[in-house]
Amino acid sequence: MVILIQCKDRVGLVADIAGVIAKLGINIVAMKEHVDTLENRFFVRIVVDGVLEAMPIWTDLKAILPEGAEIAVNPSTQKKVIVLVTKEYHCLGDILIRNHFKTLGAEVQCVIGNHPTLQDVCKRFDIPFHFVPHENKEKDVFESEVVTVIEKYKTDYLVLAKYMRILSPSFVEKFAHRIINIHHSFLPAFIGASPYRQAFERGVKLIGATAHFVTNDLDEGPIIAQQIIPVNHSFTASDMVRSGKEIETAVLAKALQLVFEERVLIWKNKTVIFE
Amino acid sequence: MVILIQCKDRVGLVADIAGVIAKLGINIVAMKEHVDTLENRFFVRIVVDGVLEAMPIWTDLKAILPEGAEIAVNPSTQKKVIVLVTKEYHCLGDILIRNHFKTLGAEVQCVIGNHPTLQDVCKRFDIPFHFVPHENKEKDVFESEVVTVIEKYKTDYLVLAKYMRILSPSFVEKFAHRIINIHHSFLPAFIGASPYRQAFERGVKLIGATAHFVTNDLDEGPIIAQQIIPVNHSFTASDMVRSGKEIETAVLAKALQLVFEERVLIWKNKTVIFE
Amino acid sequence: MVILIQCKDRVGLVADIAGVIAKLGINIVAMKEHVDTLENRFFVRIVVDGVLEAMPIWTDLKAILPEGAEIAVNPSTQKKVIVLVTKEYHCLGDILIRNHFKTLGAEVQCVIGNHPTLQDVCKRFDIPFHFVPHENKEKDVFESEVVTVIEKYKTDYLVLAKYMRILSPSFVEKFAHRIINIHHSFLPAFIGASPYRQAFERGVKLIGATAHFVTNDLDEGPIIAQQIIPVNHSFTASDMVRSGKEIETAVLAKALQLVFEERVLIWKNKTVIFE
Amino acid sequence: MVILIQCKDRVGLVADIAGVIAKLGINIVAMKEHVDTLENRFFVRIVVDGVLEAMPIWTDLKAILPEGAEIAVNPSTQKKVIVLVTKEYHCLGDILIRNHFKTLGAEVQCVIGNHPTLQDVCKRFDIPFHFVPHENKEKDVFESEVVTVIEKYKTDYLVLAKYMRILSPSFVEKFAHRIINIHHSFLPAFIGASPYRQAFERGVKLIGATAHFVTNDLDEGPIIAQQIIPVNHSFTASDMVRSGKEIETAVLAKALQLVFEERVLIWKNKTVIFE
Repeated sequence: MVILIQCKDRVGLVADIAGVIAKLGINIVAMKEHVDTLENRFFVRIVVDGVLEAMPIWTDLKAILPEGAEIAVNPSTQKKVIVLVTKEYHCLGDILIRNHFKTLGAEVQCVIGNHPTLQDVCKRFDIPFHFVPHENKEKDVFESEVVTVIEKYKTDYLVLAKYMRILSPSFVEKFAHRIINIHHSFLPAFIGASPYRQAFERGVKLIGATAHFVTNDLDEGPIIAQQIIPVNHSFTASDMVRSGKEIETAVLAKALQLVFEERVLIWKNKTVIFE
Repeated sequence: MVILIQCKDRVGLVADIAGVIAKLGINIVAMKEHVDTLENRFFVRIVVDGVLEAMPIWTDLKAILPEGAEIAVNPSTQKKVIVLVTKEYHCLGDILIRNHFKTLGAEVQCVIGNHPTLQDVCKRFDIPFHFVPHENKEKDVFESEVVTVIEKYKTDYLVLAKYMRILSPSFVEKFAHRIINIHHSFLPAFIGASPYRQAFERGVKLIGATAHFVTNDLDEGPIIAQQIIPVNHSFTASDMVRSGKEIETAVLAKALQLVFEERVLIWKNKTVIFE
Repeated sequence: MVILIQCKDRVGLVADIAGVIAKLGINIVAMKEHVDTLENRFFVRIVVDGVLEAMPIWTDLKAILPEGAEIAVNPSTQKKVIVLVTKEYHCLGDILIRNHFKTLGAEVQCVIGNHPTLQDVCKRFDIPFHFVPHENKEKDVFESEVVTVIEKYKTDYLVLAKYMRILSPSFVEKFAHRIINIHHSFLPAFIGASPYRQAFERGVKLIGATAHFVTNDLDEGPIIAQQIIPVNHSFTASDMVRSGKEIETAVLAKALQLVFEERVLIWKNKTVIFE
Repeated sequence: MVILIQCKDRVGLVADIAGVIAKLGINIVAMKEHVDTLENRFFVRIVVDGVLEAMPIWTDLKAILPEGAEIAVNPSTQKKVIVLVTKEYHCLGDILIRNHFKTLGAEVQCVIGNHPTLQDVCKRFDIPFHFVPHENKEKDVFESEVVTVIEKYKTDYLVLAKYMRILSPSFVEKFAHRIINIHHSFLPAFIGASPYRQAFERGVKLIGATAHFVTNDLDEGPIIAQQIIPVNHSFTASDMVRSGKEIETAVLAKALQLVFEERVLIWKNKTVIFE
């Protein structure tokens, strides 16, 4: 079982938290702690042996922690996720395969697409696909249709797997810290549209991808994972797109693993990741 | 011996070039060719056996190549370089060690510093150090003093090894395509000052460095090499600076090796690199 | 179109080859050449504009090349491949997704499994699955059954995507240089069974995977691609297996791309790879 | 200040340890804990604010920890090291530069060489160089001469920076867990002599280096750090040596940083590394 805590820092926090756990007679298998001294903020991830009743621990911890502490006692149930897509298959394909063979670390409840392109591959894996076109609709109408689909499910995370629509602030707020996006560049380089075209024109020797939580500032949310892949002068812009897809797939898979394993804490615009 | 050629593309270029070489009865050991089809530009790097008279080949090649062809027949003499520094030692230290043990692939003629900080380490390796302070001077006066030092030597390249002064257009033009800089970021992210502070605040998971030729557009010249190093939430801004220095040292070393081995061709704002 | 040539080296080869191509009035878009001076062996990969009749070029090249030259003029038709599997899904899943979306660079004709485990996922993608169990059979009987299936197809390559049977010399010989395997270690470390267990016990900080052509010496064929992934003390042996699967998938995908794009030449026990 | 502890695992250890620290009124800034469940072994690294008297903490911790616990309370004094070399300069050069500019994280007391080759570069940095030739000597005589030099200093670690003599069991035992070696391969591949020659002949696509503690089993001690660098068919055996030197330098630097920052714990033949 995994326990995540973040709160204001003070002397003796680790002792108090570990004391609560020791009193329950359970063993700490792994523990990683971090204090952001500039922010005076304490973060910890604790893995304990066995499965416990989450509620009592939560209450006991709450009692000894500073006011405003965020405590997550992961009851070891699998996360549930909805994947949003447009036309590109590479991230979705990887997620569907892992989901099908039960190694995603979460369960894909459905896929929502603003194009019908990826309906077929979802059907092959018996995953419901909801086609919600955006064309000829006001943004708020379109988004409320998407929300209607999402609300049919009780979901933990929305995964934007190359979903090419910009979400409105109200949509993002509704799912705060629960939307994960894969951005096709090594943020903050090449923010915005056509990053591979930009990268090609700049003649870079590496291209990257960034998985991040979505906030209202486009491309500006807390970064979960970043990786790069080398390119060279012989790459056309479309070769860069192809390489980019490889790295996008890998980075999103990595980020999802980190999130689903309860390794990611968010504070302001940054993440603390206990790998 | 290495032959570098770039010119307008046309059918039969490789045959004609290889024909010139075959007529001389010498063997091509390695050959890499690239055509930029968008630019209709042909690039080739040819390694041939043995040492030849450069001039006759150059003339024979000139005769069969399109007008405006750039031909470099590397006469296998070692490049000569001048290193410009400010206060940071890491890139210079690496260069001096390699130079001392004759593995730099070039000869360091002297070091020019706008601070006296690195004079001592140069002296330890018997490398002349010229202290040219910039303080209380007009930029053109300062730069002309630097140029005066440079002109004492017959040099091939200027290496900016953490040289923290922005060069004027007239200085850059004087040494066009001959100034190599190490930039403390994964360009084009974090252009400008304090990139590590920017990276820290953005919460990135990788930081990078970029070695590039200097042009008048600051941070915008043709990129030679880029690499990244992972960082995480436990890094303070100064930890990022420290990691950044490691990667800066490595990237500059790599870029210098590529340039000194005649593997880099420049066309407009990009490089073709035959590794 | 891609032309691959390997032969004994001699002076003037590039000129003669390029001459043949120039005479046909076609343009060389990219050319990479390598001479193994220890072996006195010449290798070249040439990309030319447009689609040509393969046969005339082949004949013209044959005429000017040393005896025994191997010439492949790729007629731009897609490769056809058969995938062999046992129980593990990760490499097959990646191949099926790419194949389904036409980005594999080859066409999967069928999958052969010595266990029925992966039949279902093949069916979902409409790929024929042949279940050829090995149990209670002599090796030669089993292999002849596999060969019978293979021979129903006209195939270019056999891909061993975590196929856990050791092939006999006669099988390997029948498909010489046409069998690609993914080996679960950074060869030549941890040769043989249970490499992740071995890696765990040795306490390594990186684990790797190797894609190679299969020869009679188990784990000893020409290497096509290798990559590594970092691990640490917190990894159990089964965590290493999981990380290993990620890297196996990535390395096999990379190797297949190189082979299908005609970038790999084999000489003795090594490959020349023109990336 | 850094506290390192390893001992048999039991319930409540973290609480007890954190309790000792909390009682002293000091803050835990970072804490990483690991339990090796197969070995039932507990490891922790704790960074606390400020500088403390080491002794009282040590005594208080000893009192609450299981018998046999290993406790290191790092009194924040810099480590002292002796570097052993033969002829190759690359690792030593890097160490000397960092030492000179006070960024090594330790102080180089002297260098011992069995060849005089590197005496000059040590002298340039005012580092004592002891030339202890091995020729025409029994191994035990030679080693006792080396020990005599070492014992002149009160040293924390011996760094074998491309020291090409195999140490005897009695020598190793005398400095158990205090000798760090850089091995010129990705252990356990290419154990023994001429690994680059072996790598060249095997046609690998990556070469690696391994920094490890030295034990009596040659090349078999606990691994601290490993990294790789890509190579290809165009690399001669001596090109591989050159690339190998780059990666050896980088890996040794990384390992030394980890050790000097008190991030490495040894248990049996493995390391726990709290990065």
